[in-house]
Amino acid sequence: MVAQAVEPTIPSDQYAGDAVFELHRGGKIEVTSSIHVNDADDLSKAYTPGVARVCTAIAEDPSLVRRYTWKSNVVAVVTDGTAVLGLGDIGPAASLPVMEGKALLFKEFGGVDSVPIALDCTDVDEFVDTVARMAPSFGGINLEDISAPRCFEIERRLKERLDIPVFHDDQHGTAVVVLAALRNALRVTGKSIEDIRVVISGAGAAGVACARILLQAGVGDLAVVDSKGVLHEDRADLNPVKLSLARDTNTGGISGRLVDALAGADLFLGVSGGTVPEEAVAQMADNAMIFALANPNPEVHPDIAHRHAAVVATGRSDFPNQINNVLAFPGIFRGAFDANASRITEGMKLAAADALASLISESDLRPDYIIPSPFDERVAPAVAAAVAAAAETDGVARA
Amino acid sequence: MVAQAVEPTIPSDQYAGDAVFELHRGGKIEVTSSIHVNDADDLSKAYTPGVARVCTAIAEDPSLVRRYTWKSNVVAVVTDGTAVLGLGDIGPAASLPVMEGKALLFKEFGGVDSVPIALDCTDVDEFVDTVARMAPSFGGINLEDISAPRCFEIERRLKERLDIPVFHDDQHGTAVVVLAALRNALRVTGKSIEDIRVVISGAGAAGVACARILLQAGVGDLAVVDSKGVLHEDRADLNPVKLSLARDTNTGGISGRLVDALAGADLFLGVSGGTVPEEAVAQMADNAMIFALANPNPEVHPDIAHRHAAVVATGRSDFPNQINNVLAFPGIFRGAFDANASRITEGMKLAAADALASLISESDLRPDYIIPSPFDERVAPAVAAAVAAAAETDGVARA
Repeated sequence: MVAQAVEPTIPSDQYAGDAVFELHRGGKIEVTSSIHVNDADDLSKAYTPGVARVCTAIAEDPSLVRRYTWKSNVVAVVTDGTAVLGLGDIGPAASLPVMEGKALLFKEFGGVDSVPIALDCTDVDEFVDTVARMAPSFGGINLEDISAPRCFEIERRLKERLDIPVFHDDQHGTAVVVLAALRNALRVTGKSIEDIRVVISGAGAAGVACARILLQAGVGDLAVVDSKGVLHEDRADLNPVKLSLARDTNTGGISGRLVDALAGADLFLGVSGGTVPEEAVAQMADNAMIFALANPNPEVHPDIAHRHAAVVATGRSDFPNQINNVLAFPGIFRGAFDANASRITEGMKLAAADALASLISESDLRPDYIIPSPFDERVAPAVAAAVAAAAETDGVARA
Repeated sequence: MVAQAVEPTIPSDQYAGDAVFELHRGGKIEVTSSIHVNDADDLSKAYTPGVARVCTAIAEDPSLVRRYTWKSNVVAVVTDGTAVLGLGDIGPAASLPVMEGKALLFKEFGGVDSVPIALDCTDVDEFVDTVARMAPSFGGINLEDISAPRCFEIERRLKERLDIPVFHDDQHGTAVVVLAALRNALRVTGKSIEDIRVVISGAGAAGVACARILLQAGVGDLAVVDSKGVLHEDRADLNPVKLSLARDTNTGGISGRLVDALAGADLFLGVSGGTVPEEAVAQMADNAMIFALANPNPEVHPDIAHRHAAVVATGRSDFPNQINNVLAFPGIFRGAFDANASRITEGMKLAAADALASLISESDLRPDYIIPSPFDERVAPAVAAAVAAAAETDGVARA
C-alpha cells in the first residue's frame, strides 16, 4: 500500500560514487511504525475513532503521555548550525548530516529515538522560546553544535524552563568521557586526582564543561587557556563564563601562554585545535597524560605525545584511547528516560563517567586501553544503569 | 550494542488491557537508522570525521541537502492541540496520539517520514515564527488540528514565508476527498457539477476549504451554514474568512437556517457535527447526495439519509463510502516530494481529487462505492503521480 519514492532526478554531482556520500544518499534515518495497520480495524484503533480515547485520557491525566505516546523515548537533537564540528557557522541545513548521525547513534547505541531539529535562528531568546514551545513533543532536548558562549546561556535557560532533561552534548558528553579516561589514566600512572595539575587548552563549550567536571571530581590545580593565554581574573577581555571560570581555577595565579602553563603539568587536555610545540610538552611532569582531542588533527600528534607522556588519548578512531562522546550520550539519555528524570544532574554525569571507567578491569587496564571502544556492548547499559540510579539518589527520578 | 529501554514503572492504570491503549503503549512510531553502523569504519563514514565532508558540500551547494539528508522525505506534523478531532482544545500533550497516528499513516501509505511536533503556543505570530525556524529540518509542513479561524492565517503566512509545501490537512485533505467523492456521486446520479446546488454545514477549517475547492471545480450554487445560519454578506457577526466566503457563495441570496437552505439542494455536506432533522433532508432535490462526515455521529444517520438520497457517504469506516483524509495526504506529500515541489497548488489538489475519483471504473461504480478504500493499494501511487504531474504543470516542481 506504500507509494514508492521516486529517485530524485537532480543531475549527478561530483560526489557520486564517493563511499561517504553514497552512504548519506536519501539520509541516514527514517520514521517507522512500531505497530501494524493492515485493515480497517487496526486503523480504527491507531487513528480515529479509537485514538480519541487515548487523547482524552491524557487530557485528564497528563502523566499518561509517557505511557501511551513515544514522548518518553524521544529526544530532539537541536542545533542552530553555528559551531558544527570544526567547521564553524555553516548554518542549519548544512548541519543536518551531523544531526542525523547523532540520531542514528542515539538509536543504535541507546535505543533512544531522536529527531534532528536544525533551527534557522541564532538569537538566544528566539532559540530558547522555539525549543520551549516544541518541548511537549519530546522527552528530552540534546543541544548540539551551538557556538560558545551562547550555548551556556541557552542551556541554562532551557533547564530552568523545562521539566525534561536538557543536555548540551558538546559540553557534557565530552566532559563525562574525559573524566572517565582520566580516572583510568590515574590508575595507570598511580597519580591521585587531588594532586595533579591540569591544563586545558580551549575555553569553548567542551573546555568549560571539562573544567567544571574535573573541579567537581576533585582536581585542585587546573588552568584553562584560550587563544589569548591563561584565564585569570585580571584579564579584561573575558566574557562572563570565562571570568567565572577564571575565578574558580588557576589557584596558582599563572599568567602567560599555554607554553608557560604546561611546565610541570600532569595532564594536558586539548579541546581547541591548534598545535602545541613539542618543547612545551617536553616540560610536563613525569608520567604525564596527554588527551589531545582536536579532530582530525590532534593538538599533539600521538607519536610526539608518546615521547613525553605515559598515557595518550585522542579523538580519533585510528589511534588507541579514543575519547568519543558516543560513549556517553546514548547511555545518559537511556538512563534518564528509564528513570523518567526531570533533569540531568551533576551526580548523574559523574556516575556516567565512573561507570564508563569501571568497565576496564585492573587486569585489562593498559596505557593504551584506558577507555572502552564505542562498540563495547557493555557501555550503554552500564552508563544507563548508573545514570538511572544517580537520578534516584539525586531525587530527580519520577518513575 | 543497544541498551534496552526499561519498562516504565508507573503504577497500572484503568486502561491496562484495553486493546486501543495496549496498541498505544510506548507510542506508535520510532526513528530507525536506514544504514548500518557495525564498526569503526562505518562510524567514521556516518559520523565524524566523514560526515564533515557532506556538511561542507551542502554549505557550498545548498541544493545537495535534498540528496544527502532525509529532509527531502520528512514532514513535520505540527499542531497546537486547539482543535483535536472533535475533542476541541485539549492542548499539545494530549494531541500527541493523533499526531503519531498521522505519522504512522504518512509512512504506511505514502512512504513519507514524518515527525509529530505539538507546540505549546497558541499565539499566531509565535506559532508561525516557531514553525518557520524549524523549517530547515523538514521537506514539508503538515498542519493539523488547529482551531479556525487561526488555522487560515497560520497557513497563509507560512506559505508566504517558506519554500516547502505547507498543507493544512483538516482543510485540504478533507476537501480533496470530498471533491473526489462528489465527482463519482455525480456520475451515479447523472447530475452535472455546474448545475447542482450545494449546502455545506460548517464554516470551520473543513467547511471553508470544501467550499473553496467546490467553487474551483465549477459548483455555481453553494451556500455555507454556520451555527448562526446561512453565511451572507449582510451578517454583522462574520470573521474575515467567513465574510469573504459569504461574498463568493450564496448567489441565491438565501438567509435563514440550515433547514431553509436545504430545500431543493442536491448535495448536503456536513462537516460540523450536530444533527439535521429528517424533515429538512426530505426537502432536498430528487437524487440527492448526502455526505454527513461528523465522527462518530454523522449529521444525518445513513439509515435516514438513504430514505431521501441516492448517494450517502460518511466519515465512518463501518459504513460504505468513507470519506477519509488518509486517501489524500500520504499521496499528496509523496507526489509533492517526488516533484520537489515548492508548494501545493490548487491544481495539485484538484489533480489529487480527480486521480482518486478515477480509480473507480464505470463498471465498478455504484451508489455505495463512490470512493476507494484506504486499503486500496492503487490510491497513494495514483494520487502521487497526479500531484507530481500537476506540480510540473503549475511550475512549482524543482526536480
